[in-house]
Amino acid sequence: MGNNKKKEPLCDNIAGEGCGLKKVINIVGGKWKIMILCVIDNNEVVRYGELRRAIHGITNTMLANSLKELETDGLVERKQYDEMPVRVEYNLTKKAKSLIPILLELKKWGEDNI
Amino acid sequence: MGNNKKKEPLCDNIAGEGCGLKKVINIVGGKWKIMILCVIDNNEVVRYGELRRAIHGITNTMLANSLKELETDGLVERKQYDEMPVRVEYNLTKKAKSLIPILLELKKWGEDNI
Repeated sequence: MGNNKKKEPLCDNIAGEGCGLKKVINIVGGKWKIMILCVIDNNEVVRYGELRRAIHGITNTMLANSLKELETDGLVERKQYDEMPVRVEYNLTKKAKSLIPILLELKKWGEDNI
Repeated sequence: MGNNKKKEPLCDNIAGEGCGLKKVINIVGGKWKIMILCVIDNNEVVRYGELRRAIHGITNTMLANSLKELETDGLVERKQYDEMPVRVEYNLTKKAKSLIPILLELKKWGEDNI
């Protein structure tokens, strides 16, 4: 009787690393990475210095490391132009762009509920 | 010409605390809180000891603090039954339940993309 439908578990394997949700938290968790994705998404293409100025409180080390990890995880693309001075630009990959609508829903939820 | 539609910014106020997305990250960011929500969601109602056993690696301090914060933020409800020994149970609030579908989408994205 009642709700006998087996509901989809939020996390299939709470102890292991296999859960999709945990993987997401691992690659975009923490406020810096979300903020970096936000700034790039707002601007399409962003130079390193612009990111540094836009994200108050972030250190060079944190920004550089976060960008490197986002690049490794296939969310951010780094393009280097051999001008003088060297220009480095970042944009979101297709994969990261597919994440944006879900982040927008999270944002909406935050506005409505917190 | 082209895409002149002003797109919704992921984060309206990257420097301040006003952004809905940052608020969400602030209250459920970090793997412990997500894992706690997962376990409670999987079981509807969970006792403290069950949570402790289900979440490998979490310390008593981390679990107790995280639960207190989730309670303060209105995501988790704590019920104490004055039996011997005292029984303490946790369940998700309506607010937290409304977040679950978005977390399921994040999970799906993680499975498909990482």
